[in-house]
Amino acid sequence: MQTESGHSPEQCVVVIGVGLIGGSIAAALKSRIPDCRVIGIGRDAERLNAARAAGLLDEFSTSVEANSIPSDSLIVVCLPVDQIAASVRSLTALTLSGSVITDAGSIKSPILRELAADTEAMLRFVGSHPIAGSEQTGWEHASPDLFINRVCVVTPESSMATNVDRVSAFWQSIGCEVRRMSAAEHDQMLARTSHLPHLMAIATTLCAHPDQLEFVGTGFRDTTRIAAGSPDIWTPILCGNSTYVADAIREAESVLATLRRAIESADASGLRSQLESAATLRRRLPRGGPR
Amino acid sequence: MQTESGHSPEQCVVVIGVGLIGGSIAAALKSRIPDCRVIGIGRDAERLNAARAAGLLDEFSTSVEANSIPSDSLIVVCLPVDQIAASVRSLTALTLSGSVITDAGSIKSPILRELAADTEAMLRFVGSHPIAGSEQTGWEHASPDLFINRVCVVTPESSMATNVDRVSAFWQSIGCEVRRMSAAEHDQMLARTSHLPHLMAIATTLCAHPDQLEFVGTGFRDTTRIAAGSPDIWTPILCGNSTYVADAIREAESVLATLRRAIESADASGLRSQLESAATLRRRLPRGGPR
Repeated sequence: MQTESGHSPEQCVVVIGVGLIGGSIAAALKSRIPDCRVIGIGRDAERLNAARAAGLLDEFSTSVEANSIPSDSLIVVCLPVDQIAASVRSLTALTLSGSVITDAGSIKSPILRELAADTEAMLRFVGSHPIAGSEQTGWEHASPDLFINRVCVVTPESSMATNVDRVSAFWQSIGCEVRRMSAAEHDQMLARTSHLPHLMAIATTLCAHPDQLEFVGTGFRDTTRIAAGSPDIWTPILCGNSTYVADAIREAESVLATLRRAIESADASGLRSQLESAATLRRRLPRGGPR
Repeated sequence: MQTESGHSPEQCVVVIGVGLIGGSIAAALKSRIPDCRVIGIGRDAERLNAARAAGLLDEFSTSVEANSIPSDSLIVVCLPVDQIAASVRSLTALTLSGSVITDAGSIKSPILRELAADTEAMLRFVGSHPIAGSEQTGWEHASPDLFINRVCVVTPESSMATNVDRVSAFWQSIGCEVRRMSAAEHDQMLARTSHLPHLMAIATTLCAHPDQLEFVGTGFRDTTRIAAGSPDIWTPILCGNSTYVADAIREAESVLATLRRAIESADASGLRSQLESAATLRRRLPRGGPR
């Protein structure tokens, strides 16, 4: 059996960090590649055992041991971005070279900078970012369909080409459309498409008074939904991508000041033309689907 | 037959402007009070005729005539906010005092300021704002359920108390929970719960590059959904509520600058504490439902 991409499906996938993303990878594998063995590594044996009982995992462990990871595994590190590089380094040291290591982190350059001195890690690691998620956390919210028709960015950088192909085929096998670009291109883009939107949701929420919440409509709800996301996950993403994120915030401050001046000076036609530019751009996104 | 509030259901409702909101009022009446006669007034006879064929209206007209509105009607002005006061004045002059006039506009004080010199209009008009809607326009997107469990703010001001009660009962009869407050309180609150979120969605959209749109996830989608809203509807809302809206934007600029400085100075704990405040506030909104 071969996948669409011509690669054999993975025989064993090790998920490091069984939260929303790691759990959804496990669920997608169980649903689409039932023969694949899925091993979960995490901190909390009780929660991992529950994830196994729920059918997401075949095995689990609270530590990575030299002999606990089969030699040809695909390893996906689904930890907060500030813990990924250290995990990749330790996995590189503990596992055989037939295993390829990837991740699901929302920023890529800082991870590569931390790995730069470790030649073997640089060859075996392939950066990935499946653009999918939710403001919820925990494998209880995992979905086997989380990745269907979502873009997964793969950053080839210094990795071995066969590893890049294998990782790309893996994401395709659980539903993603893979796009390759450099880590820097990815981080600069995500500052605008994900990190700034998160901060705008945070700022919008902080500008509302708590006793106004019962009066909000769907506009406020949608605009602020992601502000409920985990500070543990988002703080390292925003700090890790600080240069591009600060540029994006500065531009948002400037756009808001322009809108404010149009409103203060009763410049209805200036304001309308800004609203029209934004509406035209936003309407280009297809309705309904995830993308 | 009496409604929950003890008022008889309306016999005849006249909807001025049969778009998303006016059409949804008509649809809700047809679904919940089938005996109510629904008259639509608009500019485009062809579209009004189609709305009648779709079952939303019993009758329609492209103009308001002295004898075309039954004497005991409830009239709901569903026009862009900069057209409401003129419409209320002309309806007051053309109709008998048994008819009560309300609206569905997103700002209230500017309408009252425009009506202030017209004593009869002030007595017969009751300001309303059903907090419901969508980024879509046109009666084709109308829903009989648009108002169910949504808050409708009613601003009593100088209106006759019996008219305020009648208008409140009307909104309740199509599913709303009615809350009374002054026009100024309403406008100050809406600047934070609706007008600022709209501008934040606009600014977030304008900070993305058009060629990045294929890489956006659900975060960007949700945060910017309302930016697709009609500039014709939003420009007069934002300009009409300029003082409160400018205050809200200024606070948002300041919150963004604080977040940016935390990121630029790698102050992870300062950033995290802002994210935590916002997440705590946002998580207070019940999940799932419209409110």
